[in-house]
Amino acid sequence: MAKLTTLYGHPSDPAAFEEHYANTHAPLVENIPNLRQFEAGKIIATPDGSEPPYYWIADLYFESVEQLQSGMGSSEGQAAAEDLQNFATGGATLFISES
Amino acid sequence: MAKLTTLYGHPSDPAAFEEHYANTHAPLVENIPNLRQFEAGKIIATPDGSEPPYYWIADLYFESVEQLQSGMGSSEGQAAAEDLQNFATGGATLFISES
Repeated sequence: MAKLTTLYGHPSDPAAFEEHYANTHAPLVENIPNLRQFEAGKIIATPDGSEPPYYWIADLYFESVEQLQSGMGSSEGQAAAEDLQNFATGGATLFISES
Repeated sequence: MAKLTTLYGHPSDPAAFEEHYANTHAPLVENIPNLRQFEAGKIIATPDGSEPPYYWIADLYFESVEQLQSGMGSSEGQAAAEDLQNFATGGATLFISES
């Protein structure tokens, strides 16, 4: 299993971020070829009560790294990646893990 | 659904980290009450080819934030949390998300 994790920094306008995420970004993600599962949610707390370092987390699951690369390299994958600049005002940290 | 994510920084001895994770830490996690699902894996790449900012990611899933808090507050949850100091030589960033 291969997972693409995106950690979004705190946006300048949280309501606009969430509106864009739900109505524009999530549908783009759901169009990515080879996508097996998609989880996204708000970061609400840390165990020690400190300020969360990120605002939002999304995990995109694929069957393998090859399937992930193929999906993200498609026109639909590129459209989702390019959409980040339209709403990720707090920045985005992306990485791929395998388990 | 509530998820506790742990992002581990690059350890000083990756082989020792992985050995401890597999043989000591993962069994402690699997003992946590209310735990619904447990995923862990190595971060192998970033989409832009830069150095991954973390070494390892783990996600612990619970039915709700209340179930997460109760599980992590138990003696088994505390044992897993206290074990971090035994192997997380690159530090650990923890946060809770809800979706």
